[in-house]
Amino acid sequence: MAIFQAVFGNDAENLDEVMSELGRRARSAANLLAFAAPEKKTAALLAAADAMDQRRIAILAANAEDMKAAEGKGISKAFLDRLLLNDKRIDGMIEGLRSIAALPDPVGRTLAEWARPNGLVISRIATPLGVIGVIFESRPNVTADAGALTLKAGNAVILRGGSDSVNSSRAIHGCLVEGLVLAGLPEDAIQMVPTTDREAVGLMLKGLGGTIDVIVPRGGKTLVARVQAEARVPVFAHLEGLCHTYIDRSADLDMAVSVTLNAKMRRTGVCGATETLLVHRDVVATHLKPVIDALVEKGCEIRGDATVQALIPVATPATEDDWRTEYEDAIISVKVVADVGEAIAHIGTYSSHHTEAIISEDPAAVARFFNEIDSAILLHNASTQFADGGEFGFGGEIGIATGKFHARGPVGVEQLTTFKYLVRGTGQTRP
Amino acid sequence: MAIFQAVFGNDAENLDEVMSELGRRARSAANLLAFAAPEKKTAALLAAADAMDQRRIAILAANAEDMKAAEGKGISKAFLDRLLLNDKRIDGMIEGLRSIAALPDPVGRTLAEWARPNGLVISRIATPLGVIGVIFESRPNVTADAGALTLKAGNAVILRGGSDSVNSSRAIHGCLVEGLVLAGLPEDAIQMVPTTDREAVGLMLKGLGGTIDVIVPRGGKTLVARVQAEARVPVFAHLEGLCHTYIDRSADLDMAVSVTLNAKMRRTGVCGATETLLVHRDVVATHLKPVIDALVEKGCEIRGDATVQALIPVATPATEDDWRTEYEDAIISVKVVADVGEAIAHIGTYSSHHTEAIISEDPAAVARFFNEIDSAILLHNASTQFADGGEFGFGGEIGIATGKFHARGPVGVEQLTTFKYLVRGTGQTRP
Repeated sequence: MAIFQAVFGNDAENLDEVMSELGRRARSAANLLAFAAPEKKTAALLAAADAMDQRRIAILAANAEDMKAAEGKGISKAFLDRLLLNDKRIDGMIEGLRSIAALPDPVGRTLAEWARPNGLVISRIATPLGVIGVIFESRPNVTADAGALTLKAGNAVILRGGSDSVNSSRAIHGCLVEGLVLAGLPEDAIQMVPTTDREAVGLMLKGLGGTIDVIVPRGGKTLVARVQAEARVPVFAHLEGLCHTYIDRSADLDMAVSVTLNAKMRRTGVCGATETLLVHRDVVATHLKPVIDALVEKGCEIRGDATVQALIPVATPATEDDWRTEYEDAIISVKVVADVGEAIAHIGTYSSHHTEAIISEDPAAVARFFNEIDSAILLHNASTQFADGGEFGFGGEIGIATGKFHARGPVGVEQLTTFKYLVRGTGQTRP
Repeated sequence: MAIFQAVFGNDAENLDEVMSELGRRARSAANLLAFAAPEKKTAALLAAADAMDQRRIAILAANAEDMKAAEGKGISKAFLDRLLLNDKRIDGMIEGLRSIAALPDPVGRTLAEWARPNGLVISRIATPLGVIGVIFESRPNVTADAGALTLKAGNAVILRGGSDSVNSSRAIHGCLVEGLVLAGLPEDAIQMVPTTDREAVGLMLKGLGGTIDVIVPRGGKTLVARVQAEARVPVFAHLEGLCHTYIDRSADLDMAVSVTLNAKMRRTGVCGATETLLVHRDVVATHLKPVIDALVEKGCEIRGDATVQALIPVATPATEDDWRTEYEDAIISVKVVADVGEAIAHIGTYSSHHTEAIISEDPAAVARFFNEIDSAILLHNASTQFADGGEFGFGGEIGIATGKFHARGPVGVEQLTTFKYLVRGTGQTRP
């Protein structure tokens, strides 16, 4: 591709120009994709999956290059694990592409339709958003996921992955482009930023001269915070997942234990993991100890308020900071509350508006919890770790949004569309 | 109200503090309004309508003050007409309040609901957006409209009207607050910025420390452009309504005449007025002259391309600028195109993505027009002047949005809500 050579040939001195060109190409591709036949998009994703299957050796070789370079830098084990590809992970990406291909096409759905007294028939129809910029850290699989989800929704995408995964991402990107070409779709539908220059991210956040409609960051807090602070276009993101589980006075004991344990410990690093446990004071004597014992047995550190410390010897004191901290680790803060109202008030003060759960057998308490808390996802008698597009049945997600606009909660293919109104008349004029 | 005195008593030297306090009050009110009973909101609107009916004399007196002050400034006739209140216009506002009160409550609607294989039942439920900032020019009726629409959707609102209508707006605002108080709702649900200091607008556009969720500007291009350039929170707006009507080769002649005439001349100053007419070259001989004659007879100026000028002696030349101009006046630019594809391409280049219409009896041409144009509203055989929340059956609108996010097209009470997911389980944990 000429654009790659242009950049790598002259040290990206024309970064502005190269990025603008990327934007223009994306916009042109988006204009065509907006009304591409659903079968073509499906065909492109299936062909990309096949290409990935056939090019395993090349992809693994590219990844080995990235791994070797990263190992030399003394990067953390967790980082290296995210960077690593193996046959199983390639299988995962291939399955991902095929399952996204199999989803119903989200474009052209009739979202609403009604007739007016004057005979006009008005339909609200789903349309693609346009051009999506995805900025992610060195996780090669995001290249495939993000490319596939945005394509399915009829959008063009500009992918900017972490510099440590550039060879892996490029190999995966090659498969996606092969799918596009085989299906007769514009290859600029899925573009990769052809430079690891960090300034490219800054240009994307400014929207590349109006060509990027929305930015989706995928990564840790530092990345998301930068994107939210600098972006001049809409952003679908969550900065934190400071999720709560509240054990009501009416909670079933076994359920309180199993759901809380899952909510905290299934995977501690995901955004839907519970960080703070709230317990109704009437069940402190019965429920608190079994729940804490189960957590401690799995290796969880407990930080509690005074009541918790009095009852649970292993608990260290929870400070104001603890209520504000997304640990992303095997640590939980625990607070005893007087009633569901105090639980709601605590969540209102400290929540990141991501996901909260209530364990309760009392419909009135559940109704109040559902009614009065303004978070993207509220659960009753279920683990906060269900906060996930796949678990919602969206067939994958490009992320989870905690903003109030357009997309909220898991962002799947439907959330990557907007709409327009089609009005059918028979010559009506307005009085 | 103490806050008014604080500002007017010391020349707004503490503007920052006063505006922040306004924001905090709005946020507190929004938190309560979010789950206010629908009947209370309805009661507040009906009581506000009654108060307005009873306080006619005071409202007219306040308006007379504004009119007198404005007349002394040599302001335009159109401006004075928008500023003027009379009994009929007060009737209009009262009717508006009552019809918004009668709308179905948009909060708590189940937007979608589905079950997962693991038994979880997921619902998407409409919730208020939060705090809305409305910035408008000196049109007193916007005070009532915007206050009522935002309240109906469970939002708190901060109103900032033009300085020339401050007395009228304050009198109307008093009626709205009376309605809130009588219904037992927080009076801070509908606040007016208590100063005419322009810097207050700048503070609102920055979001008042995170308390404003969205800004809605109501006014001319200068206002909207400032808001779009400076706002650091989402904006529901349209900068221009550069709308097109395309007469296809298959268009019914009578319909082409009546619909085009209405689209351009019903009211030339509204955002849904057609500014450019595109005509298929095959019907230039039959359709162009009757359409132009009808427009000219109503006093419309014609600016045409070479073909149009050759056929229509009164047509002056249309320049590149004309295709880009929203006249908001009795002027139309006219271009002859080779086919529906050229019409679509012209619209793609020059449209403001607001509203476009096709007059055609050919389903294939209509399908292409609907499919390939990305504007908020597309019409078939109907006037572009139907671009209006009331005409869509929304029971009013706070404006029309041409952005792609969240609200697009007419912004009524439903568009002033967002949503959250409620997930009901029976103890599910994630594998």
